Amino acid sequence: MENNGNTAILKIHCPDRSGIVARVTDFINLHHGNIISVDQHVDHGDNLFSMRVSWDLTEFNLPREEIASTFQKFLGEPYNMKWTLNFTDEIPRMAIFVSRASHCLYDLLARYQSGEFRVEIPVIIGNHTTLEPVAKQFGIKFVHVPITAETKAEQEKLELEILKEHDVDFVVLARYMQVLSQDFINHYPENVINIHHSFLPAFAGAKPYHAAHKRGVKIIGATSHYVTSDLDAGPIIEQDINRITHHDSIKTLIQKGKDIEKIVLSRAVKAHIEHKTLVYKNRTIIFN
Amino acid sequence: MENNGNTAILKIHCPDRSGIVARVTDFINLHHGNIISVDQHVDHGDNLFSMRVSWDLTEFNLPREEIASTFQKFLGEPYNMKWTLNFTDEIPRMAIFVSRASHCLYDLLARYQSGEFRVEIPVIIGNHTTLEPVAKQFGIKFVHVPITAETKAEQEKLELEILKEHDVDFVVLARYMQVLSQDFINHYPENVINIHHSFLPAFAGAKPYHAAHKRGVKIIGATSHYVTSDLDAGPIIEQDINRITHHDSIKTLIQKGKDIEKIVLSRAVKAHIEHKTLVYKNRTIIFN
Amino acid sequence: MENNGNTAILKIHCPDRSGIVARVTDFINLHHGNIISVDQHVDHGDNLFSMRVSWDLTEFNLPREEIASTFQKFLGEPYNMKWTLNFTDEIPRMAIFVSRASHCLYDLLARYQSGEFRVEIPVIIGNHTTLEPVAKQFGIKFVHVPITAETKAEQEKLELEILKEHDVDFVVLARYMQVLSQDFINHYPENVINIHHSFLPAFAGAKPYHAAHKRGVKIIGATSHYVTSDLDAGPIIEQDINRITHHDSIKTLIQKGKDIEKIVLSRAVKAHIEHKTLVYKNRTIIFN
Amino acid sequence: MENNGNTAILKIHCPDRSGIVARVTDFINLHHGNIISVDQHVDHGDNLFSMRVSWDLTEFNLPREEIASTFQKFLGEPYNMKWTLNFTDEIPRMAIFVSRASHCLYDLLARYQSGEFRVEIPVIIGNHTTLEPVAKQFGIKFVHVPITAETKAEQEKLELEILKEHDVDFVVLARYMQVLSQDFINHYPENVINIHHSFLPAFAGAKPYHAAHKRGVKIIGATSHYVTSDLDAGPIIEQDINRITHHDSIKTLIQKGKDIEKIVLSRAVKAHIEHKTLVYKNRTIIFN
Repeated sequence: MENNGNTAILKIHCPDRSGIVARVTDFINLHHGNIISVDQHVDHGDNLFSMRVSWDLTEFNLPREEIASTFQKFLGEPYNMKWTLNFTDEIPRMAIFVSRASHCLYDLLARYQSGEFRVEIPVIIGNHTTLEPVAKQFGIKFVHVPITAETKAEQEKLELEILKEHDVDFVVLARYMQVLSQDFINHYPENVINIHHSFLPAFAGAKPYHAAHKRGVKIIGATSHYVTSDLDAGPIIEQDINRITHHDSIKTLIQKGKDIEKIVLSRAVKAHIEHKTLVYKNRTIIFN
Repeated sequence: MENNGNTAILKIHCPDRSGIVARVTDFINLHHGNIISVDQHVDHGDNLFSMRVSWDLTEFNLPREEIASTFQKFLGEPYNMKWTLNFTDEIPRMAIFVSRASHCLYDLLARYQSGEFRVEIPVIIGNHTTLEPVAKQFGIKFVHVPITAETKAEQEKLELEILKEHDVDFVVLARYMQVLSQDFINHYPENVINIHHSFLPAFAGAKPYHAAHKRGVKIIGATSHYVTSDLDAGPIIEQDINRITHHDSIKTLIQKGKDIEKIVLSRAVKAHIEHKTLVYKNRTIIFN
Repeated sequence: MENNGNTAILKIHCPDRSGIVARVTDFINLHHGNIISVDQHVDHGDNLFSMRVSWDLTEFNLPREEIASTFQKFLGEPYNMKWTLNFTDEIPRMAIFVSRASHCLYDLLARYQSGEFRVEIPVIIGNHTTLEPVAKQFGIKFVHVPITAETKAEQEKLELEILKEHDVDFVVLARYMQVLSQDFINHYPENVINIHHSFLPAFAGAKPYHAAHKRGVKIIGATSHYVTSDLDAGPIIEQDINRITHHDSIKTLIQKGKDIEKIVLSRAVKAHIEHKTLVYKNRTIIFN
Repeated sequence: MENNGNTAILKIHCPDRSGIVARVTDFINLHHGNIISVDQHVDHGDNLFSMRVSWDLTEFNLPREEIASTFQKFLGEPYNMKWTLNFTDEIPRMAIFVSRASHCLYDLLARYQSGEFRVEIPVIIGNHTTLEPVAKQFGIKFVHVPITAETKAEQEKLELEILKEHDVDFVVLARYMQVLSQDFINHYPENVINIHHSFLPAFAGAKPYHAAHKRGVKIIGATSHYVTSDLDAGPIIEQDINRITHHDSIKTLIQKGKDIEKIVLSRAVKAHIEHKTLVYKNRTIIFN
């Protein structure tokens, strides 16, 4: 029995109508699924229903390959749902893009290696070689893909090939200092996660700590978001902040900021891995 | 039509079984209730299901006086539920107990007067007269009930009479510096809300800021909880904190603490008024 | 002896040179002043020294009226200092400008009335009459100065007259929904304090909570700053934030935001009253 | 010239008297030291003065080996100071003690390897071998020193020998699950740093997340402190917190707690390395 000990995770969004939660949980109960968690949200302004439900498949009496089609027929179609179905024995494959800053990379790799992230990391791509030793240290393949304005198009093509070759599901930009083209992003919609080193929408763009220092803010932050064609304007997954004072120089801002960046990015990556994020209208719902 | 524009709020907890959310939302849908919000939680460790659901009664086709009995018959009884049903046109009546510190009282009364709290405040009871002018300023009756070790039993009886006379549903201890007897608490189970000026369980008891200063903590906090017979050990509704430094004296700790206390207490009171709290096993669930 | 029980507060900034702290504290010690607090900061990037020192005047052997001239001669002049000298028996006089939102006004007045703010509040000016009852309740004069695009210039003149008449030292905009003219601000440089209901520089301008909701941020904030001619761009005194989720509507953002706004504004006002703020290069130093 | 590009850091505490800051900065100026930072604090309750001052030694005209004796003669002795003098070219040597949990170790080693910590780490000691691969990965010697109740005394002796052999200045307990004896601590007074996985003094002792879950707190925390003979009661260096909800199980508390623990521990270690901590009366002063 293939489902043994495995869990299904269903994410749904659709126009709000009464009774959707009941219909979905009925569907699962009817087939002897043991519901583990349900979280739902209705945006009344947008009349949008969204839901994440997970259930134990041990005694579920629909064969796994029929779940999707059955669900679509009885619920997806009638309720005009957009939905995704995942199983916890399908380990997502994540690539990390880096430049020179190491703090986010270390944090991601430590969580990966200690088993906190249920993920595979087949490859790390860097536009510099600075972090190749870190990748090696954690036993992960590192590919150097230098990028200049002239080579960008072809190098992105190369990157896409590397990702395809390694069967990558999603990409994490761990302080990767290159802007991805629209074409690249189109290959991984809602599957490229960035960390921006400011509390967006404040200080979008380059050198946010310099800008924060100049503006004299009393709090700095970091923002993890899905990458869209609009730079630093994609759907926000997670943000956090830290208090600063007039004693802080740009140097100490950068230092303090690193701690926020790595935690915020890792929380966002974890939510993504666990299928707890849902994007709509350039915002996210983060399920429990 | 009595239900016009009114909302029903149902809070449930019971042993977890599959399908409860479906049954409850079906019940509401069946009677043409328009669900406004659903929040549910399952504690798998305790196998406990809990849920808060609110719905618009405008087109609900059960007369209000039959909702409770019908629900009990079809769902409450079969699922062994503990549940409460409230309607938003029933404005809860809240009494405030005070001693000398004014900050929480001001904050509660400002929210009350500006309409943030959907509540009636028929009476403020003080064991000192210090805050009588504040009560007067906001046009609320103030009763002075001094308490000594000797007079405590009879004075609590007096307080209970005052509460009864004013038809009080719940009591807020706004930095009230007297310990209530078990007998008093028994009259208002899960309906007496206290603010303790520390991050419980740290610094329970008297003079927590002195204790915090002596211990050299780097963060202070405040805790709002339901009062039980076990001092400072009741179910926590809300907590918050503020960073401090070695520059802080006991005096500035007290000052900074006041801001946390009043916000934490007011958040807890708001959650209570809106029927968003549920107590079990000396913990709380705070619904969305 | 006029100085009895009184404290002097000196704030200095000047080009950094070695030995300034020593010179200043020597000056105070030499005249038998008992130093209560010293806080200093050097911005090495800007080569700027700043310092706040307070001392007990009980045994200070310079007559109060000679302190300024003596200090200027021996230290201010030679070190090219900008400095201010205040005495704690000079209670600053603060006017509050309001529109319709009451939360900041209540918070300021409660602190004033309970003695937390060492300040006089001779007058509250509103461009609406909504909050006149609140002013009355706290026994403070309220003047209605309605403003339209056409009447703005003359009405500001009227406001300035009212402030002059009441000998006002500084103005607090407690969610006052009018932009002050450059001319008005020039009358109170670094003495008009605003609260903006966002985490600046994010969401400057109108309706920040609507903008925050649309952008899908996970944290909201508030910013108190000195008003300059550049809207929402003045030197920031204090900021704070609160976490939100996708469950939050614009309505609940506004509600949660109020708690941050009032605390942030009151902290800023307190720092200003206690002469703990120093502005330079559109930033602030907030002394201990 | 041996002092080239080097910085001296002086930490002082003594009974408060007027003019100490002036005397100390005069001393440095007199010998042509260029002051980089000064931070001072007076605890008026305890009449205790404390200060940290750092200065560039490039043009300092006292030979390094005479600084201490000269300072002691002219200032330390007369003012009854306790003081320490450090130079930034003396890299402190830190040992890490671990058991099985890896998150703090990874965080410390990533900072070490990326150059954030100006420190040497000659050895990691584990009472389990679980983390030996992590030590190896970062190229650091790992010594397995298993400990049982029976072997504790002799094994601690072994640990002390290892520390001595590696010339260790201070020890970091990175979730080391053994209580150190008084004798061990006596070898490294104010030089053993622990991370406790709760907001002390709440939930001292074993299994704090289990206790926090049972108590139903709304916020969890972590505390880094110097180890003293009184378990979990030493001087607190740093604390931080994270909000939780009723959705959190013990498992997710532990997970969320790890992020706080590692950041809090690393901040404390950084403060220690940079000679920014000063202990008195079981509290700490953390200088800027």
